[in-house]
Amino acid sequence: MNTSVLSGKRLAGLIQQRAQDEARPLEASGLRPVLAVVVATEDESTHWYVRSIERSAARAGIDCRIVDLGHDATEEVLAGVLRDLSAEPSVNGIILQTPLPAGVRADGLVGLIAPDKDIDGANPLSLGRLAVGQPAFAPATARAVVELLDHYEVPVAGRSVAVVGRSAVVGKPLSLLLLQRDATVTICHSKSGELGRFTQPADVVVVAAGRTGLLKGSHVTPGTVVVDVGTNVLPDGSLVGDVDEATVTGVAAALSPVPGGVGSVTTALLLLHTVEAARQQSRSGLLTTCTSRI
Amino acid sequence: MNTSVLSGKRLAGLIQQRAQDEARPLEASGLRPVLAVVVATEDESTHWYVRSIERSAARAGIDCRIVDLGHDATEEVLAGVLRDLSAEPSVNGIILQTPLPAGVRADGLVGLIAPDKDIDGANPLSLGRLAVGQPAFAPATARAVVELLDHYEVPVAGRSVAVVGRSAVVGKPLSLLLLQRDATVTICHSKSGELGRFTQPADVVVVAAGRTGLLKGSHVTPGTVVVDVGTNVLPDGSLVGDVDEATVTGVAAALSPVPGGVGSVTTALLLLHTVEAARQQSRSGLLTTCTSRI
Repeated sequence: MNTSVLSGKRLAGLIQQRAQDEARPLEASGLRPVLAVVVATEDESTHWYVRSIERSAARAGIDCRIVDLGHDATEEVLAGVLRDLSAEPSVNGIILQTPLPAGVRADGLVGLIAPDKDIDGANPLSLGRLAVGQPAFAPATARAVVELLDHYEVPVAGRSVAVVGRSAVVGKPLSLLLLQRDATVTICHSKSGELGRFTQPADVVVVAAGRTGLLKGSHVTPGTVVVDVGTNVLPDGSLVGDVDEATVTGVAAALSPVPGGVGSVTTALLLLHTVEAARQQSRSGLLTTCTSRI
Repeated sequence: MNTSVLSGKRLAGLIQQRAQDEARPLEASGLRPVLAVVVATEDESTHWYVRSIERSAARAGIDCRIVDLGHDATEEVLAGVLRDLSAEPSVNGIILQTPLPAGVRADGLVGLIAPDKDIDGANPLSLGRLAVGQPAFAPATARAVVELLDHYEVPVAGRSVAVVGRSAVVGKPLSLLLLQRDATVTICHSKSGELGRFTQPADVVVVAAGRTGLLKGSHVTPGTVVVDVGTNVLPDGSLVGDVDEATVTGVAAALSPVPGGVGSVTTALLLLHTVEAARQQSRSGLLTTCTSRI
């Protein structure tokens, strides 16, 4: 079977263009969207990634404010910055970039990001709102999977989707998005036993487990559409997904590549979310704030 | 095959006893737990249900404060009451009882229940916290299913569970609880097509769709454990679940009855959650508040 390639590059360009088109009228009315990215690491690949967001943002007409707190920033400092950015009217979107300094947990911090600026769906309240069908930003990676399927006209309504991975960043929010679209969703994970039992009967398989070569040709059947969300860095520095491309190619009907698949779409969606956030904030002129005193 | 009956009555008694045992030391230290139930309907069965909670609460050493706002209460009045109860230190748990007056949506209101008093897991933030593994109260019905399976020593780790129904009150939070316990979860719903495709391969099937007779004998296999969360009132006033008992009995390994199954456990859990909330609040002496200005 010929396995078609679900490249994300063209879609990423379309979304980036949409962000730019929607940012223009905002800027014309004096509101240039601002995305704040909070960084607290010396990890080079993270800084490289943040600069790539900054460049894409600039092309879309979005200002990227990189708040670099250094690798020894304390939880208190990070919390203070997130509270300030949440309250600052000129900031429309906020990302707390991982990794964080040793000993600092993202868990409590992401709850400080104002939900209307939580453009990467990191605040548990965003996930909860997504679950009950209230307006909220989904994590960009989760939405990227759905947009990629839409782009290639892969239907999910009334079809079965196996999601491999149960993380709060991809597996769970993606499952919620797919349920919203009337898919029947099976969530598998490291304790699921023989993966093929769940992936073979599925029409679509999304792998987001963070394990190189996890999904093999024997796990899919002819006709399966496979989306690879994995981003694993090999010792030689190259990036691979969770799919064993060599064996899945030739069996599956379609497969998204890594790199060049979901990842490219994700960054574009962060920008689109920022513009959407700016537009909503300019419309309402009001703030939704969530403060936790613990 | 002999289908065993997963009655919830004994378990409900055990949980009620546990609530009572945990309430006693609190009362000894001057803190008698208080559960506030906000009612805004003239529906008789609702008032009957609320009075039954009140009686069970009294037996467990919990004060039930029924706040009856009448069937013409406005959204503003309800919002004000929920804000006041959330801020009132003597109140430990809050339930917003449905149905609400015509035109009033529960959606926005439940977000006003302080998460640490949200003993029926109605606030989207509770659901989000559940999803990311932070401490939160699950909806009592969802937890009741898990407690019932535990009570009858039905393992779920590494096994497959089909959840029929994707509501924010049962299907979704139950799926999160089951994932936490390492089950592989398939969420089916009205658009899933032929149900048997998903329920037949499952080790455990939980039906929470609100449709009389939905799950039939042909949907299960010998060995399947079936939990019925449905509560449908027939024209003659009798209560039935979502399972077609006549055909499932004799095929499934076990089946929870309606009434006398999940429902009995749910009320007991509301009380246990109230006592747990009171204990946590007395320990921390602090409040977590979430305010939304929209």
